[in-house]
Amino acid sequence: MFRNQVSAAYQEIQDRICTGLVLADGKAQFEEELWQREGGGGGRTRIMQHGNVIEKGGVNFSAVHGQLPEAIKKAFKVESDEFFATGVSIVMHPENPFVPIIHMNIRYFEMDEHTRWFGGGIDLTPHYVIPTDARFFHYRLKETCDQSDAAFYPKFKALADDYFFIKHREETRGVGGIFYDRLKPENTGLDFDQLLAFSLAVGNTFLPVYTELIERNRDKAFTTQQKEWQYLRRSRYAEFNLVYDAGTKFGLETNGRIESILMSLPPTAKWHYNPQVNPNSEEEKTLSLLKKGIDWV
Amino acid sequence: MFRNQVSAAYQEIQDRICTGLVLADGKAQFEEELWQREGGGGGRTRIMQHGNVIEKGGVNFSAVHGQLPEAIKKAFKVESDEFFATGVSIVMHPENPFVPIIHMNIRYFEMDEHTRWFGGGIDLTPHYVIPTDARFFHYRLKETCDQSDAAFYPKFKALADDYFFIKHREETRGVGGIFYDRLKPENTGLDFDQLLAFSLAVGNTFLPVYTELIERNRDKAFTTQQKEWQYLRRSRYAEFNLVYDAGTKFGLETNGRIESILMSLPPTAKWHYNPQVNPNSEEEKTLSLLKKGIDWV
Repeated sequence: MFRNQVSAAYQEIQDRICTGLVLADGKAQFEEELWQREGGGGGRTRIMQHGNVIEKGGVNFSAVHGQLPEAIKKAFKVESDEFFATGVSIVMHPENPFVPIIHMNIRYFEMDEHTRWFGGGIDLTPHYVIPTDARFFHYRLKETCDQSDAAFYPKFKALADDYFFIKHREETRGVGGIFYDRLKPENTGLDFDQLLAFSLAVGNTFLPVYTELIERNRDKAFTTQQKEWQYLRRSRYAEFNLVYDAGTKFGLETNGRIESILMSLPPTAKWHYNPQVNPNSEEEKTLSLLKKGIDWV
Repeated sequence: MFRNQVSAAYQEIQDRICTGLVLADGKAQFEEELWQREGGGGGRTRIMQHGNVIEKGGVNFSAVHGQLPEAIKKAFKVESDEFFATGVSIVMHPENPFVPIIHMNIRYFEMDEHTRWFGGGIDLTPHYVIPTDARFFHYRLKETCDQSDAAFYPKFKALADDYFFIKHREETRGVGGIFYDRLKPENTGLDFDQLLAFSLAVGNTFLPVYTELIERNRDKAFTTQQKEWQYLRRSRYAEFNLVYDAGTKFGLETNGRIESILMSLPPTAKWHYNPQVNPNSEEEKTLSLLKKGIDWV
């Protein structure tokens, strides 16, 4: 069955990424929690904490199935009562403020033969935007996309800008990346095997890209003030995930495993009242780059 | 005009509470920010930070008016295009984990002669539930309610239990309090002057109750572990406010002043993965009391 093929490939990706991150971190290991969902299916939550590089991060795999909640049925306008969903979700909160937060998700969703699709994306949230890193990141994503379709990167880059936007702050969550949903033969011209190949290519882009960004920045010295700025940026990350993120909402509404869903939240976040940044500071420069529509490639 | 009478009385309450909190804290002062809303009206945001007792807290007054957003019109099922809303909102995050977080809101909302009401409430979120404090708190709220109507306290207490509930955690935000909305002559038998008197009585209950809870707990010694528990409980507070709170949602959707709306968020919050509490610990006792339907009076 196709769905089993997808979830097996996703588990392999989870394994490979975890091995790579443990090597890169050099100190922390993943703690694994195997969980079952009452309605059907389960997952492997893997969390790393207090590492050399990673303060808190998760690489989660799940494959769940069961009855579709009424709210979701309405939102998707489908008749089917059954769903199957599998995916790998990653969020990494690094210790050093110069190492960026990263998020990746690859997922496959199926209701029936005619209603199934791939979704996912990777996006980067630097506490301090380093333009060379942002360019490298986007360039590598473009390379991955181009192998499937040259139209993908510009389209999915624009979708990421729109999706990872903190409306009430009028700022993007970070420097974006790619975001896509509901990819199927009808709207891509690719068959499901080709779409799976694209999904896996996105998954396999994560490790070399993030380990490169870790290597570039892990040993940079930082001040208490820069750490405080990291806490502030993390509070914006928490706001996005709790107010806007569709995956988080879906998880909370479908009685997902709370600790797995909310592993994306930062280890420490601070909300001071009305924080100000100094003119021409690195912090101000970062804010000026948290905008939609910047062409990083 | 009635609405001006309400907003003038609310401003007086804001002044009185701020004076009292500065006295109780003994160190911090309120910083005031006067702001205007583009669509009409404005407010006085007053924030206290780094006090002896209060780590971060706000006592905000606003009186805004203008065009009703389409989404809100639909939600309220009204024809009117205009609204007026005035209120006082308070959230206090204390330094000492044995001093509880407190929230108060009194508000008056008006669309036209036939569509206007009072809403509000006070609720308490102890990091450690101290039953004598919770009883004192509820007893004083009951006294205030009873002066207007003996049916108010049981009704509004149950509403607070339902409202301040973190569904995905299956726990209440704290020990509750009172919560009410859309109070008008038709559903209370009180005229608008009497309803205003009730609203002001709630407002005037805040200061003596909270200063008493401060006095009882401010000098208690606490450990690093207890401070960490406070950070964890604050993360739940942030989850509630960002995921469920109607006032926060309303503010974010109507382009309210972000720093005033989000002043409720804790100065520092921590999300560790899958935190566990020790059997028979004070932390476990607290969790066992974060339930609906406890009769504290």
